[in-house]
Amino acid sequence: MAPYGPRLVVPIDVKKKPWEQKLPLHNRWHPDIPPVAEVKTGEVFRVEMVDFSGGVIKDDDSALDIKSIDLSAVHYLSGPIRVVGEDGIAAKPGDLLVVEILNLGPLPGDEWGYTATFDRENGGGFLTDHFPCATKAIWYFEGIYAYSPHIPGVRFPGLTHPGVIGTAPSMELLDIWNKRERDLEENGLQNLKLCEVLHSRPLANLPTPKGCRLGKIEDGTPEWEKIAREAARTIPGRENGGNCDIKNLSRGSKIYLPVFVDGANLSTGDMHFSQGDGEVSFCGAIEMSGFLELKCELIRGGMKEYLTPMGPTPLHVNPIFEIGPVEPRFSEWLVFEGISVDESGRQHYLDASVAYKRAVLNAIDYLSKFGYSKEQVYLLLSCCPCEGRISGIVDSPNACATLAIPTAIFDQDIRPKNNKVPVGPRIVRKPDVLKCTYDGNLPVTRNPSAST
Amino acid sequence: MAPYGPRLVVPIDVKKKPWEQKLPLHNRWHPDIPPVAEVKTGEVFRVEMVDFSGGVIKDDDSALDIKSIDLSAVHYLSGPIRVVGEDGIAAKPGDLLVVEILNLGPLPGDEWGYTATFDRENGGGFLTDHFPCATKAIWYFEGIYAYSPHIPGVRFPGLTHPGVIGTAPSMELLDIWNKRERDLEENGLQNLKLCEVLHSRPLANLPTPKGCRLGKIEDGTPEWEKIAREAARTIPGRENGGNCDIKNLSRGSKIYLPVFVDGANLSTGDMHFSQGDGEVSFCGAIEMSGFLELKCELIRGGMKEYLTPMGPTPLHVNPIFEIGPVEPRFSEWLVFEGISVDESGRQHYLDASVAYKRAVLNAIDYLSKFGYSKEQVYLLLSCCPCEGRISGIVDSPNACATLAIPTAIFDQDIRPKNNKVPVGPRIVRKPDVLKCTYDGNLPVTRNPSAST
Amino acid sequence: MAPYGPRLVVPIDVKKKPWEQKLPLHNRWHPDIPPVAEVKTGEVFRVEMVDFSGGVIKDDDSALDIKSIDLSAVHYLSGPIRVVGEDGIAAKPGDLLVVEILNLGPLPGDEWGYTATFDRENGGGFLTDHFPCATKAIWYFEGIYAYSPHIPGVRFPGLTHPGVIGTAPSMELLDIWNKRERDLEENGLQNLKLCEVLHSRPLANLPTPKGCRLGKIEDGTPEWEKIAREAARTIPGRENGGNCDIKNLSRGSKIYLPVFVDGANLSTGDMHFSQGDGEVSFCGAIEMSGFLELKCELIRGGMKEYLTPMGPTPLHVNPIFEIGPVEPRFSEWLVFEGISVDESGRQHYLDASVAYKRAVLNAIDYLSKFGYSKEQVYLLLSCCPCEGRISGIVDSPNACATLAIPTAIFDQDIRPKNNKVPVGPRIVRKPDVLKCTYDGNLPVTRNPSAST
Amino acid sequence: MAPYGPRLVVPIDVKKKPWEQKLPLHNRWHPDIPPVAEVKTGEVFRVEMVDFSGGVIKDDDSALDIKSIDLSAVHYLSGPIRVVGEDGIAAKPGDLLVVEILNLGPLPGDEWGYTATFDRENGGGFLTDHFPCATKAIWYFEGIYAYSPHIPGVRFPGLTHPGVIGTAPSMELLDIWNKRERDLEENGLQNLKLCEVLHSRPLANLPTPKGCRLGKIEDGTPEWEKIAREAARTIPGRENGGNCDIKNLSRGSKIYLPVFVDGANLSTGDMHFSQGDGEVSFCGAIEMSGFLELKCELIRGGMKEYLTPMGPTPLHVNPIFEIGPVEPRFSEWLVFEGISVDESGRQHYLDASVAYKRAVLNAIDYLSKFGYSKEQVYLLLSCCPCEGRISGIVDSPNACATLAIPTAIFDQDIRPKNNKVPVGPRIVRKPDVLKCTYDGNLPVTRNPSAST
Repeated sequence: MAPYGPRLVVPIDVKKKPWEQKLPLHNRWHPDIPPVAEVKTGEVFRVEMVDFSGGVIKDDDSALDIKSIDLSAVHYLSGPIRVVGEDGIAAKPGDLLVVEILNLGPLPGDEWGYTATFDRENGGGFLTDHFPCATKAIWYFEGIYAYSPHIPGVRFPGLTHPGVIGTAPSMELLDIWNKRERDLEENGLQNLKLCEVLHSRPLANLPTPKGCRLGKIEDGTPEWEKIAREAARTIPGRENGGNCDIKNLSRGSKIYLPVFVDGANLSTGDMHFSQGDGEVSFCGAIEMSGFLELKCELIRGGMKEYLTPMGPTPLHVNPIFEIGPVEPRFSEWLVFEGISVDESGRQHYLDASVAYKRAVLNAIDYLSKFGYSKEQVYLLLSCCPCEGRISGIVDSPNACATLAIPTAIFDQDIRPKNNKVPVGPRIVRKPDVLKCTYDGNLPVTRNPSAST
Repeated sequence: MAPYGPRLVVPIDVKKKPWEQKLPLHNRWHPDIPPVAEVKTGEVFRVEMVDFSGGVIKDDDSALDIKSIDLSAVHYLSGPIRVVGEDGIAAKPGDLLVVEILNLGPLPGDEWGYTATFDRENGGGFLTDHFPCATKAIWYFEGIYAYSPHIPGVRFPGLTHPGVIGTAPSMELLDIWNKRERDLEENGLQNLKLCEVLHSRPLANLPTPKGCRLGKIEDGTPEWEKIAREAARTIPGRENGGNCDIKNLSRGSKIYLPVFVDGANLSTGDMHFSQGDGEVSFCGAIEMSGFLELKCELIRGGMKEYLTPMGPTPLHVNPIFEIGPVEPRFSEWLVFEGISVDESGRQHYLDASVAYKRAVLNAIDYLSKFGYSKEQVYLLLSCCPCEGRISGIVDSPNACATLAIPTAIFDQDIRPKNNKVPVGPRIVRKPDVLKCTYDGNLPVTRNPSAST
Repeated sequence: MAPYGPRLVVPIDVKKKPWEQKLPLHNRWHPDIPPVAEVKTGEVFRVEMVDFSGGVIKDDDSALDIKSIDLSAVHYLSGPIRVVGEDGIAAKPGDLLVVEILNLGPLPGDEWGYTATFDRENGGGFLTDHFPCATKAIWYFEGIYAYSPHIPGVRFPGLTHPGVIGTAPSMELLDIWNKRERDLEENGLQNLKLCEVLHSRPLANLPTPKGCRLGKIEDGTPEWEKIAREAARTIPGRENGGNCDIKNLSRGSKIYLPVFVDGANLSTGDMHFSQGDGEVSFCGAIEMSGFLELKCELIRGGMKEYLTPMGPTPLHVNPIFEIGPVEPRFSEWLVFEGISVDESGRQHYLDASVAYKRAVLNAIDYLSKFGYSKEQVYLLLSCCPCEGRISGIVDSPNACATLAIPTAIFDQDIRPKNNKVPVGPRIVRKPDVLKCTYDGNLPVTRNPSAST
Repeated sequence: MAPYGPRLVVPIDVKKKPWEQKLPLHNRWHPDIPPVAEVKTGEVFRVEMVDFSGGVIKDDDSALDIKSIDLSAVHYLSGPIRVVGEDGIAAKPGDLLVVEILNLGPLPGDEWGYTATFDRENGGGFLTDHFPCATKAIWYFEGIYAYSPHIPGVRFPGLTHPGVIGTAPSMELLDIWNKRERDLEENGLQNLKLCEVLHSRPLANLPTPKGCRLGKIEDGTPEWEKIAREAARTIPGRENGGNCDIKNLSRGSKIYLPVFVDGANLSTGDMHFSQGDGEVSFCGAIEMSGFLELKCELIRGGMKEYLTPMGPTPLHVNPIFEIGPVEPRFSEWLVFEGISVDESGRQHYLDASVAYKRAVLNAIDYLSKFGYSKEQVYLLLSCCPCEGRISGIVDSPNACATLAIPTAIFDQDIRPKNNKVPVGPRIVRKPDVLKCTYDGNLPVTRNPSAST
């Protein structure tokens, strides 16, 4: 029998640490991280990945691992993978790399994941001022479905996708990143008042040798020292794709990535079994190890042809993509709305982030009336296939954002009802998420009018 | 034959001015605007509406009417409609008013609309710093479809909805609105740095007797004078619903509105044949006259049961809704991404508005390569059924927003292609949108790297 | 204000009889029925229609009108409409007429319909051996939704469509029809054993002057006499389209009809607010009066280019069509299966009709356990948006047919459940459908094992 | 690390013959075939399967293996699997076995399949009178997609499903099957005239020791001899489910199977990467080896509660099922229609099989105009996700069946166009399917009017 199926180019053994893998992983973006594998355009290949934490977060009964996680060490990425055309010529800067996601999923034998929110002093999340404690929920997979013992009464099919996929930046692009993020870190609180409203800290995640892993470049070598001080952290998505956390990058989708270095140097990781738009709890998808089956094409010179620089240099571009044909199908949605007035009643100006925050808070409070704790709903809305929309962005001063939740994922009817007697079971959902104490001193945002 | 169908409670004659209608229209929110009609819960009724401008914008060959529009006079709303339970008891503050949209559409004989962007000195829009000129495109309707002589090569089914639907505020809620919006107007530029990035002006639209219409309350009377100075403008959506511009409030959807005054006093207007998420060009839907067929229910005491106050008072709530079952169906989407780095290359902190702005700019530039002018695409993305998503809102410092465009609305294949020779026709799309000069002095944002 | 919207080419006054309309209706297919209107390609026009019975069936409390209906007089069609190209040249035989359904719906003021099954001696239906009595249910429309006082507990959005739409046959094609249907009528019971299993009678509906209406040709004239003896009845769909009862011919769909006579002579009628695949109770859609908004194009010579003759002559073709973009959306379906073994246990050979009959019988019995009478379910499955599929047609000797029912149309959860105690309300649904006695002598098929 | 994921209960080594597998396969239905494995309700387990032919059909350059296949030896099924409740009590006759398909796919390393049509003398197919030759096309899988070198220009996501899944019959039910199928075989041609129109032979596939495999029961033993003479063949779907070839039994679907014997004895096989409704070419899906991940529940006494006997005994039931949430999504469909008039022009009476045959023939001829051979289209319509509908089954004498094809699977626009110059490439698609000669003497049905 002839061999069929994808060629495995990056294997993972989940029992090993990220730096013990046969092809060691990396957790920074830098043009000088050497490729660990090479693929040809048209070839179907398989990349395996550890979870974003590299195995630090466990399937156990405590959220302490979340509380104490070292965020300087994430995300562990597989690659870089050098892409070569069928003519033998490597991808060149200026090309467009077309990556088709042919299939993906959890690693066989490792069919579980977790959703969490970080402690406010160690990463936070979109609502960290309301929910400062580290929490965690474990999810188990039954084929296309996930369920959690910590969030009873829901079950949903995954819209599985890689949280991180991107090409290596050129040195020029890397310099742009480092400069603009340093500016924010240094001047943001004074200049950008939104920083006062969204409470996650730090403002930016600047290069640091702490926790840095550079694949084949050995820790502590002079080369490692140099790169580690320059290499961009993986937390934000940027011009190269990266940690965009676009939940629709699932089976059958195509990503058009700009190429900045010879060979493109594609890296990927941070697999999500499922995620809601916004990934609001930050560690908010169902995080897991997993695999991707990919096929690459090259559109030579395609950056100029198809991507739009939007900034001072031709490098200020963004990837584009096409959605695949097999996303989960839902027909009934309950939708929550938010406007850009914050919890203190203060008016903001066309601020979609504030509006979305209010929409999410509205949804959490609403669903908590059906037997869930607010922490359960916060994690659920981070990881279930809910949709976050910018509905109105011009009606000064209010942006209007909406959060749409598919009702079919619940085992009860969560729609408002006219009945005097509730029809569905408003069962108190026990047990709750795993939860740590918050030991910091920052004030919690309380909503004096909300239900308790 | 017995009479069937909805009872017409607010008739419109599109040949008359808003204040000449049998049941005169209003363009402010205030508890003392008297109801013009009454409906019972369970009853199917029909409300007709003028377009948001009250007939000021014409189907002609010039955008001058857009340039010179008096925005103090919009939106003209039909109602208020007093809602009474089957028990004869009017809706009470604290109730939840369930409004089901059973049907809607353009007014027979008036099957046309327009999409426009205001002059930067008179309203602006999401991208007014890039596109400061007033522009206009006319759309004609063929049943479910719209097409425009000014944007050739596209045709799409409408996701028709009312831009404005809401209940009357109580005096207490009105005071909250006026105070917070005045604060923004007075202190916004200093306090909220986002104001420097989004260039639409004024920051808020405060009460003004200019252009004010109050339905049955005659202009110039003492009562009118008092209310006109207090009544909230209709531009922003707020706690009562209002101008939320949620494109999915279409056939078969249900809206759960809070009740603040006796009888609920439901008003609606600003019909949109179609709108994209965000309504980016501001006058950005396909604006038209139209009708709604509605049915109301009351959930007594439902505000406390189902709505979440999110702010200092129990009035700080937002409506929720359910999506209807007959939205247009598209299977292929091309998606553009933006991150919160602005056109000057400056890094913003988790700012979804900035990220969405960049996504929209990316899409405009991309589509302009297929034979469209950028002004054509700007209007198209305002009004076609495209989806704007908050994809990532936690990956500091970059928010990631996406704009998904259904490819089936184009008469050519707009996806990136590998071919040396373009497959589809990259026809220059003529004629262009109707366009005025910009006579102001504000600098235009130029993107030095973008295509021209 | 300029006039907008479709030109009304066939108006209907529902208070008048079909033959009293301004443009009198016809209920036969014949090349010599003269056109009553003319349209140009590219023009948007409106055609109004009476219900299939021409007003005979009433919104009252009895099914007697169904029992005694004269089926020789149906369906009353609007038209023929002569189609002329923009060049002024009429459609020619051999052209392909592209009819786009831009919009449709009930006639304003007449928003009701009915679903019925005929008496076994007067039309019958797919299950007439099980359900020999005439029955009727009235439906009322609330915008996109229909509900029936006779089938409580269900409500659904309509997939509205014309049951009949077609072009006039040429004399040659008409002769083919009359010959083959007469052969069936004369020899069918001997030759085609399926006739013994499907019990509707007569086998064919041959031309008859009884009940014949020919539009502008006055009853009783010699011309009328001649045509009435030749003209094809409208019951079956044929090569010209006609009564195909394809439920997906709804908003936004396109039909490619063959042209057999000069001008194409398009006729349409038999509007259905909604219908299930198969229209099993025969008078099985939600029958109503209504309107169509249409636009025609001509593909000159398109029959040869695009349609496939499948039979002895080039006239043996069938229309093709494209489905529109706004069908109701359902995500959950319960599916019933049938194989080609009949109720007596007899094995049939790859017979999809027998398999589908068994699937429908299975579904009726199942749903009757949730509080419905079997007559209610029979009518419901005729008119709700359920899907009938030929799943397997090669696995000798069993064809496998399936019937998929959207669960969201019910106000209770109709899926099988593991609970000892039923979760949903198994309410007895009262009142029942309107029902007559069956006064004939044919034996009723009883299923000794079924629930009663 | 704890073990996760499904327990493998039936492993397959595709390099071995069906009878050499660790748990030997069976290809008959009989109550006395002993279970090879046991599962508990609630447990997630994995079943692997050979392709329906047990490895006889190869990925090579010839259709000779199809022409000479021994159909007495198919389908090779994995199982039977004994199902036991969490209380330790095995499934009992009268229970309802709920099988949830959690995941499925090709076997890793064996990602290919084939679609074929049998020689008319050895199995035939729905259109065997038109296409008497054995043909074969090979498909390769790229994750969710399949493409074929023998049918260029199409690519589609699979709606993967098991062709065969069912429970073991009781002896009583088996006797019913054997009696009714023998009756057909002996008397069919005289009694059932449909047999003259559908040309596949034999009429039924009666028990035969030839090719019989009974799992753990060794060939040639007295027990084997007895069972082999009684055991039902697997070709037709029947009351126990079996070879229903329902293409929607895919990821996330649930099947409610009747239980006839202690332990239920679930067997499954005949994996299809994709199939069109009807599976018209008989060997018509994309046949492959594969795996299922399943979970079982038991509804005790559920047959009486939920299934409807439709025949002389309580055993005359059919399974029901629910469709899963991740089927491929298509928005544009081109639809072909057929009526129950056969290729000779003869009128049949409400015969959905004849109507569907004409619809399929129409589609084949149409698509052959876009550069495909008719054999290519015949195989394509057998295996792509097209939908076959019974649209009208009451309009005597014509049944109306429709075949809907998603246009997005083609690399050209296959819709009819008005242009004088064809827009899309009407490339002749080379190479063609693999094809054998037909050496029999039966006449081929020719359609004198069709394109050649």
